[in-house]
Amino acid sequence: MSAAMADRPRRIVIVGGVAAGMSAAARARRLDEHAEIVVLERGAHVSFANCGLPYYVGGEIEDQSSLLVQTPATLRAALDLDVRVHHDVIALDAATRSVTVRGPEGDEQLAYDALVLAPGAVAVRPPLPGLDSPRVSTLRTVEDAVRLRERIEAGAEASARRAVVLGAGFIGVEAAEALRRQGLEVELVELAPHVLPPLEAEIAAPVAAELRRLGIRGRAGIAAESVEHHEDHDTVVLADGTRLEADIILLSAGVRPDTAAFEAAGVACERGAILVDEHGRTNLPDVYAAGDAVLSVDAVTGLRRPVALAGPANRAGRGIADHILRPDSARPLPAPVGTAIVRVGELTAALTGANSAALSAAGIETDTLHLHPTQHAGYFPGAAQMALVVHIRRGDGLLLGAQAVGREGVDKRIDVLATAIRAGLTAADLIDLDLAYSPVYGSAKDPVNLAGMVGVNVLDGTLALWYAQDWDRLRAEALILDVRSAAEYAVGHLPGTLHIPHTELRDRLDEVHDAAAGRPVRALCGSGVRSHIAHRLLTQSGFDSASLSGGMLTARAVLGEGVLAH
Amino acid sequence: MSAAMADRPRRIVIVGGVAAGMSAAARARRLDEHAEIVVLERGAHVSFANCGLPYYVGGEIEDQSSLLVQTPATLRAALDLDVRVHHDVIALDAATRSVTVRGPEGDEQLAYDALVLAPGAVAVRPPLPGLDSPRVSTLRTVEDAVRLRERIEAGAEASARRAVVLGAGFIGVEAAEALRRQGLEVELVELAPHVLPPLEAEIAAPVAAELRRLGIRGRAGIAAESVEHHEDHDTVVLADGTRLEADIILLSAGVRPDTAAFEAAGVACERGAILVDEHGRTNLPDVYAAGDAVLSVDAVTGLRRPVALAGPANRAGRGIADHILRPDSARPLPAPVGTAIVRVGELTAALTGANSAALSAAGIETDTLHLHPTQHAGYFPGAAQMALVVHIRRGDGLLLGAQAVGREGVDKRIDVLATAIRAGLTAADLIDLDLAYSPVYGSAKDPVNLAGMVGVNVLDGTLALWYAQDWDRLRAEALILDVRSAAEYAVGHLPGTLHIPHTELRDRLDEVHDAAAGRPVRALCGSGVRSHIAHRLLTQSGFDSASLSGGMLTARAVLGEGVLAH
Repeated sequence: MSAAMADRPRRIVIVGGVAAGMSAAARARRLDEHAEIVVLERGAHVSFANCGLPYYVGGEIEDQSSLLVQTPATLRAALDLDVRVHHDVIALDAATRSVTVRGPEGDEQLAYDALVLAPGAVAVRPPLPGLDSPRVSTLRTVEDAVRLRERIEAGAEASARRAVVLGAGFIGVEAAEALRRQGLEVELVELAPHVLPPLEAEIAAPVAAELRRLGIRGRAGIAAESVEHHEDHDTVVLADGTRLEADIILLSAGVRPDTAAFEAAGVACERGAILVDEHGRTNLPDVYAAGDAVLSVDAVTGLRRPVALAGPANRAGRGIADHILRPDSARPLPAPVGTAIVRVGELTAALTGANSAALSAAGIETDTLHLHPTQHAGYFPGAAQMALVVHIRRGDGLLLGAQAVGREGVDKRIDVLATAIRAGLTAADLIDLDLAYSPVYGSAKDPVNLAGMVGVNVLDGTLALWYAQDWDRLRAEALILDVRSAAEYAVGHLPGTLHIPHTELRDRLDEVHDAAAGRPVRALCGSGVRSHIAHRLLTQSGFDSASLSGGMLTARAVLGEGVLAH
Repeated sequence: MSAAMADRPRRIVIVGGVAAGMSAAARARRLDEHAEIVVLERGAHVSFANCGLPYYVGGEIEDQSSLLVQTPATLRAALDLDVRVHHDVIALDAATRSVTVRGPEGDEQLAYDALVLAPGAVAVRPPLPGLDSPRVSTLRTVEDAVRLRERIEAGAEASARRAVVLGAGFIGVEAAEALRRQGLEVELVELAPHVLPPLEAEIAAPVAAELRRLGIRGRAGIAAESVEHHEDHDTVVLADGTRLEADIILLSAGVRPDTAAFEAAGVACERGAILVDEHGRTNLPDVYAAGDAVLSVDAVTGLRRPVALAGPANRAGRGIADHILRPDSARPLPAPVGTAIVRVGELTAALTGANSAALSAAGIETDTLHLHPTQHAGYFPGAAQMALVVHIRRGDGLLLGAQAVGREGVDKRIDVLATAIRAGLTAADLIDLDLAYSPVYGSAKDPVNLAGMVGVNVLDGTLALWYAQDWDRLRAEALILDVRSAAEYAVGHLPGTLHIPHTELRDRLDEVHDAAAGRPVRALCGSGVRSHIAHRLLTQSGFDSASLSGGMLTARAVLGEGVLAH
């Protein structure tokens, strides 16, 4: 035992005490009772509930104390960790294996045998004139959240009730809802074409509608140009001249790795993010890094990008402790799949793996499937459709990514698909999954099974799809055949389509033949189930046919309600 | 095209029109517009919501029409299927490739090119005296459910309000709750040692408590011996002499394959269940079988058993249609993993893969993990613990089975684990899953990730476990060390234990040393997290130590509340 002990690091220094850093510290202690473990945290708190901050702002989490999962005292008692808050690491010297720490009592040198860099990221501050206004907040720390809620509660008395949220990413959307829940008027401004930019347009559309239902005014595809400061409010000026008056401006325009001190010390970085190997090692000996500050290799596309997610950060911190203390047996850290989720009002939106943009950037040929299954058996009360988008690799059907939005069951399906992506499953494998079925929880053919069935049908040519994005071209080139019921058709349909309910199609193929006049037939229905049946009938009857992926539900999300004829 | 067409079966005959049969029929039509597809169903309904029957009885599903997902007319219109209800196949002649069908207009011979046997199963009727009473019902068909609800509604007027449910499997438990929801007094009688026999005892215990909370009186480990018939009620007599008066007796003692006519015709069976190959083929040419009537090979244990689940039945029916019409490209049918779920009051209980009994029967060496994680972040309102049991293969950690019970999030974790089992993942792989995290839905370390971490700790010796089942032996042989807080200890603890809170353990190791007096130390806490930390400290301090798997939560479920000292 003593021989092995002699090789172990005696002092492990960890920079940053939240997700990755604290996971590394706790795991290190469990593996080695005798190491000295020092955690240096710039802020006032360690191991706090970062992802809970918007819910504290919104009042759903009532007490600030709930956000503080651990304190230096509890960590000392349970794990004998030396946790020092208000300690900022301002320099690193790899030659002497030491860091310079600036604390309340001044600077000191601290030597390390192993060093873990988990400094996290800071809010991006775009170069907008006026953004230094005291009415501008960010939401990264407990202090940020506490100050913001204090301002809201003060504002409630002073009738200062208008908020502008700049950036409609996950935190921006959560914060906008939190502010709205507190009764403020909320404007949400996003530079990208739609809210929650990582989502596909057809998944983001229901989210945007839900934000409107909550009373949040969203504007996408537009830049903020400046913030004007007035005595009793600020004004956010947008690129189109719109002026939004605000008592509170929440800046949520993304984050950047907080790595300047380490890059200056020779830690290899790319675009400010620390480069690490499969064990979390940087280019410097015995210096590791994890969390929002590192560059990850995407598990699906192989592209390098920062992944600011708590799950991968915790996992990497823990895995780094394994490698520091058990270098021979530590498993490589997995490349992140990038699974994320957000509640918006009564909806859940979630994604895993790559989206269309990432697949396109990576040059991966993809088939995309759109489904609208219910979260549980349709005959059981409360059944509600979700929108599910699944990307599979053309040819072999390898699962590449998935997104969903709906009222219930979205988190479950995305987690199953995230597991399937990690396991390297294909569309065919999804058919074979034995998922838990009772009418309360699912269907005998679960949405994930259905996605596999549609995928294999596409891969082997049983099903040919067309996409709502191609509507403008196809309405000119093809006969668009709507096979829904007369009642559904009457409520709203794409203009210029032939309407034959799928139950009558066998007897009315002559009409299709005459209307098509040699053109291809592009069928559609509500969600793609009946048009698949119609496609099979048409293709076996000699037509060049295809079925609209996701049906009218997807078409309305992609094209908007304005396209409909009545 | 005509050459390929010529090889295709012209008439596909399908026996049984519910899950497997109707999936085969619908898929066959989508693949082949020109085949004649005949579905022969003995009962009055096809494609009905079998798993919804208890909810119709309980009134949660209000209308009988909701149970009828399709009718012969809708199937004719949409898919050109020739669906014949009240048609019972009474004989099969493989030599002439024909079946004898008994319909309302008499018997007829029907030739087939391909035959799919999906006759399902019928309720087992144990040889109990008096079980032929008209007050005894089963719950297998829409007619069963309608009659039962009529009797309940009639009973409401006549004050006939007592039900005895014989058999506490999934359907028995669902039916008991449905009857209770209708206001009846319900007694639930199970021969096996606990309700829901496929569940581990520690998962079944919270279910039994929830049944009691619902007002259902459950008796497990006891047989019914007879049913006595009286003028205005029946009496169920149990083996211990208990007499239960009943206006309604629901027999739910399992099912057996409904295969006598086919076995007589030469279809190879084992214990009455049809033997099939990986494409669903029986021993007879062009005769396939699927659903509750076939014997499956368990995906985990390799043991052969009937799997009466809708998901595998639907999947097999569809896969058989693929093999009939596309024999060269049809994929093999997967062996069922056996995932099942049930709602009981406010709880969900679910399982996937093999349980302890099956693993033991198969001779597979297993490590079993018990966890009690919350369904989402503990700091977010509404966090509630679930009980999670995971079986991994000793040595390599291959995931073998999992069960869970709790208020929320059980279905999600079991579906993720079912996917992991199908994919052949190990405990280490579970650590690496990127699951969707926001405090509303999960934790940065999801319950599934945690199970992986505990599993790898056990596999590599970082963690040694002891089990509540070994309490009687270990209390004599070891020092039992309770590391919970003083407040937790005071509420109830195992007798004769040493109590040192984990936060004080480092400073009080001398006390442990003295109390142990050379014996092993067996630590415990609330759920196993703190005793793991204690174990690490103890083992690195030279003690022979282990941590109680699942902590006091599991111990109370296994040993009962009576074992506690206060």
